[in-house]
Amino acid sequence: MGEQRPSGPDAAPPRPGCGSVRAVRLGEGEVVFLDQTKLPGKIEFLAARSVEEVARAIETMVVRGAPAIGIAAAFGLALQADLAVGPATVGAGAASPAVLTPEAFLAGFAAAAERLARTRPTAVNLFWAIDRMQRVAREAVVAASPGDTAPAGPYAPGWLAAARDRIRAEALEIAAADERANREIGRFGQELLPGKCRILTHCNAGALATGGYGTALGIIRAAVEAGKDVSVFVDETRPLWQGARLTAWELLQEGIPATLITDSMAGWFMSQGQVDVVIVGADRIAANGDTANKIGTYSVAVLAAAHGIPVYVAAPRSTIDVRTSNGRDIVIEQRAAEEVSRPYGLEVAPPGVVVANPAFDVTPARLIAAIVTEAGVARPPFERSLAELLARP
Amino acid sequence: MGEQRPSGPDAAPPRPGCGSVRAVRLGEGEVVFLDQTKLPGKIEFLAARSVEEVARAIETMVVRGAPAIGIAAAFGLALQADLAVGPATVGAGAASPAVLTPEAFLAGFAAAAERLARTRPTAVNLFWAIDRMQRVAREAVVAASPGDTAPAGPYAPGWLAAARDRIRAEALEIAAADERANREIGRFGQELLPGKCRILTHCNAGALATGGYGTALGIIRAAVEAGKDVSVFVDETRPLWQGARLTAWELLQEGIPATLITDSMAGWFMSQGQVDVVIVGADRIAANGDTANKIGTYSVAVLAAAHGIPVYVAAPRSTIDVRTSNGRDIVIEQRAAEEVSRPYGLEVAPPGVVVANPAFDVTPARLIAAIVTEAGVARPPFERSLAELLARP
Repeated sequence: MGEQRPSGPDAAPPRPGCGSVRAVRLGEGEVVFLDQTKLPGKIEFLAARSVEEVARAIETMVVRGAPAIGIAAAFGLALQADLAVGPATVGAGAASPAVLTPEAFLAGFAAAAERLARTRPTAVNLFWAIDRMQRVAREAVVAASPGDTAPAGPYAPGWLAAARDRIRAEALEIAAADERANREIGRFGQELLPGKCRILTHCNAGALATGGYGTALGIIRAAVEAGKDVSVFVDETRPLWQGARLTAWELLQEGIPATLITDSMAGWFMSQGQVDVVIVGADRIAANGDTANKIGTYSVAVLAAAHGIPVYVAAPRSTIDVRTSNGRDIVIEQRAAEEVSRPYGLEVAPPGVVVANPAFDVTPARLIAAIVTEAGVARPPFERSLAELLARP
Repeated sequence: MGEQRPSGPDAAPPRPGCGSVRAVRLGEGEVVFLDQTKLPGKIEFLAARSVEEVARAIETMVVRGAPAIGIAAAFGLALQADLAVGPATVGAGAASPAVLTPEAFLAGFAAAAERLARTRPTAVNLFWAIDRMQRVAREAVVAASPGDTAPAGPYAPGWLAAARDRIRAEALEIAAADERANREIGRFGQELLPGKCRILTHCNAGALATGGYGTALGIIRAAVEAGKDVSVFVDETRPLWQGARLTAWELLQEGIPATLITDSMAGWFMSQGQVDVVIVGADRIAANGDTANKIGTYSVAVLAAAHGIPVYVAAPRSTIDVRTSNGRDIVIEQRAAEEVSRPYGLEVAPPGVVVANPAFDVTPARLIAAIVTEAGVARPPFERSLAELLARP
C-alpha cells in the first residue's frame, strides 16, 4: 500500500507541543498518514494515492481514533474527487474527465463512500463524515448545474473542478472543525478538574486520534495550559498498545508527567488512592449516553465506580449517534486473533489457541459522570442533555 | 547462568496430560528448570549447579509461581548440601569435606538460605520452604552428632552425607507434598463448581507454578476429570504473559476448552454473562484472608463482585502466612520497567517513559467467596476458617 516516506525536512514531521501532531493530511492527489502502527519507534509517513489505499490504512490502523478515521474517510473522498479531475484519472481506470458525466462522478463517489464505510464498523464518526461528504458532493454537482434541480446536463464547463474544490474544502473543514471542537472540549473539560489532579486514561484520545489536540488528551492539555498540576496514568491498552505507543508518546513530547501501566494495574492504583478522575474518548455514544470505546474502557469504568472515581467521556458531537438508542445496538468490531496471540510477531501464546478479540466495549451511561463535547458538558440523564447539546449551533 | 539443554529424548520432556509437567527437578549436583521464560515457543531446560544460579533462576522467573519457587528454593538448599559433600565442593570454593565442620556446614547453609530469601519478596511459600529446610538442616546435623544437643564435635564419620540425605529427602518431600496438596485442592474445589461452568483465571496457577497439577488449574483439571463441562477464559496477564504463555499452553495440551483474552476484556465478558466463576492462585494469604496474587487479580475480583460472580482462591496451606495479619503488611515486589515498556525487546513505549510495575496486588478478603486448600474450603470470616484449616493434620 502506498509509499513509505522516512521522516525528513520535506516530510512534514510532527511538531511537538500543544498536540499539533497531525495524524492525516490531505495533499494533492494523495492522503498522507503518519503511520501509527510504527510509533513510537519510527516516524514514518504513508501516502495513499487511491481510495482503496485510504481504506486499507483505516483497516490496518495506520490511522485510528474515531474522529481521525472520520477525517481520513473525508480526505479519501476528497482524493476520489481529485482523481476524477486530475491526470491520474485515466491511469486509475476511472472515466476520463472528458467523458465523465455528473451521474458517473456521483456513482464513483458513492462507490468510494461505500468502500470506506466497510473499513471499520464501530466508530460512528466514520459514517457521519461519509454521509456529510456525500451530501456535499451531491450539492456541489447540483450547484454546478445550470438549473437548480437534481443533477442533469448540460453543465457549465469546469463543473467537475468546481465540485472537486467544494468537496475538498468540506473535507478540510471537517478536519479543522474537529480540532476547534477539541479545543472547546478541552476548555469545558478542564473546568471539571481540581487544581491538582491525577488522571487515568485508556487508549489514545489525543492529537493522533483526531484532527489535532485530542479529546481526552485535549482536556489534559487544556488543564496544563490553565496551570493545573496534572499527572496521568496511561493504560498501555492491549492488544495494540495505543496507550503505550501513542498516548505516552504524546505526553512525553509535551513534558506532561505520565506513568505507563498495564491495563491490569488500573484498579490497583485506584485502590491505593492514586487516581482522582478517569478521562477517556469515545467511538460511538448512543442517545442514552451508553458509550462504545476501546476494549477495556468498560472495566476501567466499573473499577472507577467501585472506588468513587468519576469517569468523564470526551468526544465531539459527531461521535453521538442519535439513531442508536442504547449501547446494545452498537456493532462491536471483532479483530484478528494474532493481535492478541502474536503482537508484532512476538509469539506470546501457543499456536492453535482460541482467542477472542473484540476491539471495543460499551460502558453503560450509569457509569459515566459527564460527557464533554465542544458545545458543553452533558450530565445524566443523557437522553435529555445530549439532545440539548446537539440542538446548539 | 547454568546450561541450556534443548529438549530431546534425554531431557525429561514434559509429559502432556493431568498436569504432569514439572517446573523443576532435583538432579545430582544440579537443579533442572523447565525455562518458563521461553515457553510456549521453546521447551528448554536450564541446569543450575550453584545456589547463585538457582537464585537467579527465581529472580529472572525461569521458575515462577509461589509453590514452585518454594520448591526451587528447597531444591537449591538440597543442592547446597550436595555441593558440601561432593567433589564439586573444592572447586566451588567452599570448604572441603575433609575440613568442613558442622558449624561451617550450617553457616554455609544459612548463607545459601539468605541468598535464596533475597530473590523475591512477596510469595510466602519461598520463606516457608527456606525456614523448613533450615530447621531440617539443623536437626540433621544434631542427629548426626554423638550427643543429642546442639551441633558440636566429635561427629561420627559420614555425618555430612547423612545430613545431606535427610536434607535432600526433605526437599523432595516438599515437592511431592505440594503435588498431593494440589490434588486435594482440586478435589475440594471442583465440588464448588456446577456441572457446566465457564471459568475465568488470571496468570498461571497450574502445574508449572507448583509441584505439579496446579492449584487453580488443579481445580479445573479435577472438574474435567469429574466429567464436568468446563471452559476457561484465560487472561493473558501482562506484563509477562503467564496466562497466554503458560496457562493457555497447559490447557491446550490437555484439550480443555480455553479462550485467550487480554486482561482488559475480562470485565466485558463478565458483563455479557459469559463467566460463571473466577478461580485464581495466591502468592501470600494473610491471616484475615487478604490475598496477594499476580497484578490484575484485584481488578478481576472487583469486576467479579460487580457482576455477582464468585471468586475462589486456590492455594496450599504453605501460602497462608499467619504472621501477616492483613494485606496491608504484604510487601509488593516492584519489577523492572522494561517488562512493561520493552517486553521481549519489543519497543511498545517511547524511550524515557516512566513505568510502574508492581508484580502483585492484594485482593481484600471481602471480595473472596472461598479459599480452597488441601485441608478443605475456608469461607468468610477467614480469620477463623483459615486458622481451623491450619490446625488440621
